[in-house]
Amino acid sequence: MKIIIWLDYIGTMVFAISGVLTAGSKRLDLFGALFIGVVTAIGGGTIRDLLLGVTPVTWLQGYGYLIAIGTGFLITFLFKRWVAKLRTTLFLFDTIGIGIFTIIGLEKALNLGVNPAVAVIMGMTSAVVGGVVRDTLTNEVPLIFHKEIYATACIAGALFYLGFRWVGLTQSINEILTVCIIIAIRLLSIRYNISLPVFKHPES
Amino acid sequence: MKIIIWLDYIGTMVFAISGVLTAGSKRLDLFGALFIGVVTAIGGGTIRDLLLGVTPVTWLQGYGYLIAIGTGFLITFLFKRWVAKLRTTLFLFDTIGIGIFTIIGLEKALNLGVNPAVAVIMGMTSAVVGGVVRDTLTNEVPLIFHKEIYATACIAGALFYLGFRWVGLTQSINEILTVCIIIAIRLLSIRYNISLPVFKHPES
Amino acid sequence: MKIIIWLDYIGTMVFAISGVLTAGSKRLDLFGALFIGVVTAIGGGTIRDLLLGVTPVTWLQGYGYLIAIGTGFLITFLFKRWVAKLRTTLFLFDTIGIGIFTIIGLEKALNLGVNPAVAVIMGMTSAVVGGVVRDTLTNEVPLIFHKEIYATACIAGALFYLGFRWVGLTQSINEILTVCIIIAIRLLSIRYNISLPVFKHPES
Repeated sequence: MKIIIWLDYIGTMVFAISGVLTAGSKRLDLFGALFIGVVTAIGGGTIRDLLLGVTPVTWLQGYGYLIAIGTGFLITFLFKRWVAKLRTTLFLFDTIGIGIFTIIGLEKALNLGVNPAVAVIMGMTSAVVGGVVRDTLTNEVPLIFHKEIYATACIAGALFYLGFRWVGLTQSINEILTVCIIIAIRLLSIRYNISLPVFKHPES
Repeated sequence: MKIIIWLDYIGTMVFAISGVLTAGSKRLDLFGALFIGVVTAIGGGTIRDLLLGVTPVTWLQGYGYLIAIGTGFLITFLFKRWVAKLRTTLFLFDTIGIGIFTIIGLEKALNLGVNPAVAVIMGMTSAVVGGVVRDTLTNEVPLIFHKEIYATACIAGALFYLGFRWVGLTQSINEILTVCIIIAIRLLSIRYNISLPVFKHPES
Repeated sequence: MKIIIWLDYIGTMVFAISGVLTAGSKRLDLFGALFIGVVTAIGGGTIRDLLLGVTPVTWLQGYGYLIAIGTGFLITFLFKRWVAKLRTTLFLFDTIGIGIFTIIGLEKALNLGVNPAVAVIMGMTSAVVGGVVRDTLTNEVPLIFHKEIYATACIAGALFYLGFRWVGLTQSINEILTVCIIIAIRLLSIRYNISLPVFKHPES
């Protein structure tokens, strides 16, 4: 399906923007900020490709992802003040982004013939590991380890996708439905302030 | 040898438990704790497979490792208070775990035809790099960089294995002997409080 | 060209020395210091190889890199006081090192048929990512994200290389010229105290 490639590029662009903006509060120089933007955008897909053995990793196989990231950078710098105020819009795009990345990772893994459980993990990896690398490189405990329903929404969405697929739903409808479910879970969890319980060591 | 596969699963389970328990003092949410458990359990083997070019990486090629990790999680949550008190038992299992992982990494590397020095490094990598990733993700300087004889025991064990192999010892006996040597080095170093010297910069 | 292999080994040795010296101010034990030396020396090339799909990664395919790293360690420990005082010499070698690593990464990527933009990124990756891994493992925000012209010099050098190549310059002359340009950019930027602007978030 052609549209998913375009959605992938848009997701990559949005992640690059959000990566650079995150870097903005860290007093990095221009190179550091761009580096963080790049790893945020392509980190998850890279780890997924490496684990699955897809090499050269996808973003090296053409100009598409580099152009998507470059466009994200251009938008960030040309409309710096404006972009920073669009937090809500960015949040929405980011949420759409993790939905898209989950499906892309999931389908890629299934096409390579791994089992469904591994495919779900690969979908989640595509969506959230870029953020984990971003936070680790900027010396923070990854946000998704202690805040909000995020990776959990991706896992839930991936499970729904597998279920719909099993009952024979058309792929394109399944894709749209799954993205909607991931977005819905994330929005509802924030609206009603639902988060995962903190895991505490009984003796600590 | 079939038994080594089972030992590998048990090692993976123990590492998953110890990863989750480590996460327990970090105020991570449930997802974060499980994520840390997973990388602790499969991080070392994953890096080894990637460096050697074994893809999809081993834990993606079936349900075995996922079930081992899931069992570890189940045990941790069902017997939370109980597990936390079993520090000594866990410590023993962890020590057996690094022994097993060292041999598995070493044999895998030798089978792929790399030279013995590289094979020793791959054995050590299998055993200790999961802990390095765990500590890095939770924003700590890796424990094995500044505490106790740990990786050093794995390297020593791997060298003994190569020596025994060279003199013609049967593989299965060699495996058992090597695990015992690694365990012995670690236990003795803790018993007699032996650790590596701190490396200090002459001017710092 | 044979000489580039020797330069590669020398670069690896210098990076191993500088990695161990960096570790020296972190109160790591001997194993930790050597581990940091190794990742500093081979981290960039390893990530480049993994992304491009060159496995087993280059340093596993023989004794050359291990010997280079071992020699670096030997020099550091035998001449500890002496090495620590050679900061300026080390700085120069490090600068030559990133020049050499940039070219090696760039040429390797071009030989594998990726596009020029990706090849430039791979050249830069070879040169600077080892330092990123070193800093991340020792719990620091990577130096190259907020200090001096460093990665930028590699990127500029790689672009010059492509330009010279395009106009038909002989490879060996191009290599020497590019290393000189990278060195010149770095030295001039330090001499005249030029650095990249800090990227600040407009609202932070």
